[in-house]
Amino acid sequence: MAALSFQLHQTDAQSAARAGTITTDHGVIETPIFMPVGTVGSVKALSQQQLKTEVDPRIILGNTYHLYLRPGMETMEAAGGLHQFINWDRPMLTDSGGYQVFSLAANRKITEEGVTFRSHIDGSKHLFTPESVMDVERTIGADIMMAFDECPPANCEYRYALDSMNRTHRWLDRCFARFNDTPDKYGHTQNLFPIVQGAVFHDLRNASCDYIAAKGATGNAIGGLSVGEPEAVMYEIAALCCERLPKDKPRYLMGVGTPWNILENIALGVDMFDCVMPTRNGRNAMLFTTRGVINIDNKKWERDFSPIDPGLDCETSQYYTKAYLRHLFKAGEYLALTIASIQNLAFYLWLVREARKHILAGDFLSWKNELVPVLKTRL
Amino acid sequence: MAALSFQLHQTDAQSAARAGTITTDHGVIETPIFMPVGTVGSVKALSQQQLKTEVDPRIILGNTYHLYLRPGMETMEAAGGLHQFINWDRPMLTDSGGYQVFSLAANRKITEEGVTFRSHIDGSKHLFTPESVMDVERTIGADIMMAFDECPPANCEYRYALDSMNRTHRWLDRCFARFNDTPDKYGHTQNLFPIVQGAVFHDLRNASCDYIAAKGATGNAIGGLSVGEPEAVMYEIAALCCERLPKDKPRYLMGVGTPWNILENIALGVDMFDCVMPTRNGRNAMLFTTRGVINIDNKKWERDFSPIDPGLDCETSQYYTKAYLRHLFKAGEYLALTIASIQNLAFYLWLVREARKHILAGDFLSWKNELVPVLKTRL
Ligand SMILES: [Zn+2]
Ligand SMILES: [Zn+2]
Repeated sequence: MAALSFQLHQTDAQSAARAGTITTDHGVIETPIFMPVGTVGSVKALSQQQLKTEVDPRIILGNTYHLYLRPGMETMEAAGGLHQFINWDRPMLTDSGGYQVFSLAANRKITEEGVTFRSHIDGSKHLFTPESVMDVERTIGADIMMAFDECPPANCEYRYALDSMNRTHRWLDRCFARFNDTPDKYGHTQNLFPIVQGAVFHDLRNASCDYIAAKGATGNAIGGLSVGEPEAVMYEIAALCCERLPKDKPRYLMGVGTPWNILENIALGVDMFDCVMPTRNGRNAMLFTTRGVINIDNKKWERDFSPIDPGLDCETSQYYTKAYLRHLFKAGEYLALTIASIQNLAFYLWLVREARKHILAGDFLSWKNELVPVLKTRL
Repeated sequence: MAALSFQLHQTDAQSAARAGTITTDHGVIETPIFMPVGTVGSVKALSQQQLKTEVDPRIILGNTYHLYLRPGMETMEAAGGLHQFINWDRPMLTDSGGYQVFSLAANRKITEEGVTFRSHIDGSKHLFTPESVMDVERTIGADIMMAFDECPPANCEYRYALDSMNRTHRWLDRCFARFNDTPDKYGHTQNLFPIVQGAVFHDLRNASCDYIAAKGATGNAIGGLSVGEPEAVMYEIAALCCERLPKDKPRYLMGVGTPWNILENIALGVDMFDCVMPTRNGRNAMLFTTRGVINIDNKKWERDFSPIDPGLDCETSQYYTKAYLRHLFKAGEYLALTIASIQNLAFYLWLVREARKHILAGDFLSWKNELVPVLKTRL
């Protein structure tokens, strides 16, 4: 089996948008791509069948922190890795647990060695180091593993951002050392992506891009954005990183974002995205559609018997009406969560597929500029 | 369009089990049949696609009390009835709301006119009468409507059971008067099934059967069982009612029960069943399988990577492992509820289809007697 490879098919003439192909041992991913988040081995409220039939994502994401705690690595290894455990034979990516240790766990303490924390589930004490996280990600067995990093808050000071970035770089060296020392466990090749940090400071981001690029990894990620900074700052930093990171490797912007965030960042040269927004907001009755944003809880939908999203080629979006979905939310039915999650994920996947088509057709920028205000419309 | 008709194909020589066919304007139902419960217009935790593909029930049930409160009859009528509202074009049955007014609503008060109660959702005050319930069931538009009855508790005294039964009979006359006075609303024929009451008293049950049978309805139901009485008493009363009710009409035993309850009652001559047990118990991690009962929460399944139920021809039961399903329950994932509900419903539908096959093949009783102890096994 072979390491991940990236073919760049087209770079937009009017923007930095790119259309490419990532090839992994579990299949091909056309970029730009959005990756649904399957936190603990399930994309929330969807079955694997619904995910395949209705959303058809080429790659999904698992969360190392969650999977490490539950089901735990003994079960994961006995299952033969996450692909086997959840019965999903397409590419997968795991984050490093870093972000979630900082956002979910209690009593966390950072040292040069790593991070100690208490589980948000049972309070048990754990230590994540670059080495232990590599071992955990090896056992999960995703096609793409993310390096262990610290994601500092948006409002951190320069001095903290600098120290944190330097530690993240030292951790990165340790990640690669462990990664290169350990074999693939399940017969397919795993890849390690490093992560650019540096908060909102241009010189730090530039330095981090150079440090990361020097690793010669099969792909590179931009972390520490969409953590509370203004949108304009996110775009500014994403643009800076995309310009400085290698052109011949996929660029992954972590944890972003709204549909218009995704289109704008595609225009800046990002190839890969993930975000819990489509599923989390869906579970809170917020629908992203080809015609704008819908709060399906609103009384105005009570007797609207039109399909949820007539513009989307997804059975769920056509089969169920707005009135029925609103009723399901009002009645507290599980099916509400499923339908809304499918709608939003199908919409996100439609969005990146359309973006790719327009990049290849050469009219991406005008298409994007026309679509963004439509997508932002409150219906 | 035509009223429901029943063809009896086979009555078992060693028991009273029957195989038949019910024909409705929404299609044919082979009996014996189990009807999944779709309380407020959704079989809990399943999409309509999953219901069709994985469970394939010929008829499902809606709850009048719930649908009357939410989405309410204005929305239901605007939608064109429940078939349209939930987009399900197969036969449906609605209960009368009687049972749920008594089990869920607050401050209920029975008079000759009907029942006043307060909504369990918002405390609002409502009156159900035989006439108003017929109107509500007309607006919901199910193929089979149930008469408005009182379902007295299992431990009620003879005097209460007698008075309640007589009132239920007077209500039945009013139900039929209103039913016959009102047209079908949505182009397909609705049918009204009366319900035998009489608690655990043989003479009352006999009198009620005769009263009900005299209506000449297209089908007859047995109510007031599985409400707390011993299993032996349930079988005794079900046997008595089946013997006395018309042979040329389908017999529906309401709200029953476990897999073995269903097999035993099929042996007594029951043709139709409904119960929330497969979905409710499923959501509580209890699985009914072809090999016995599984508490999937149990640690013994932690690393059991065998399919949920190898004996069942259902994709979900084959696709997911016991270890994965246990993990989903432990992690509180929605998909756990969906998988468990599909497993249990697919199993119930398999059970009645197998029963029918064995009735037609002439070996029902020996098959049933061999299977019951297997199904009861705690795995
Ligand atoms: Zn594989
Ligand atoms: Zn129809």
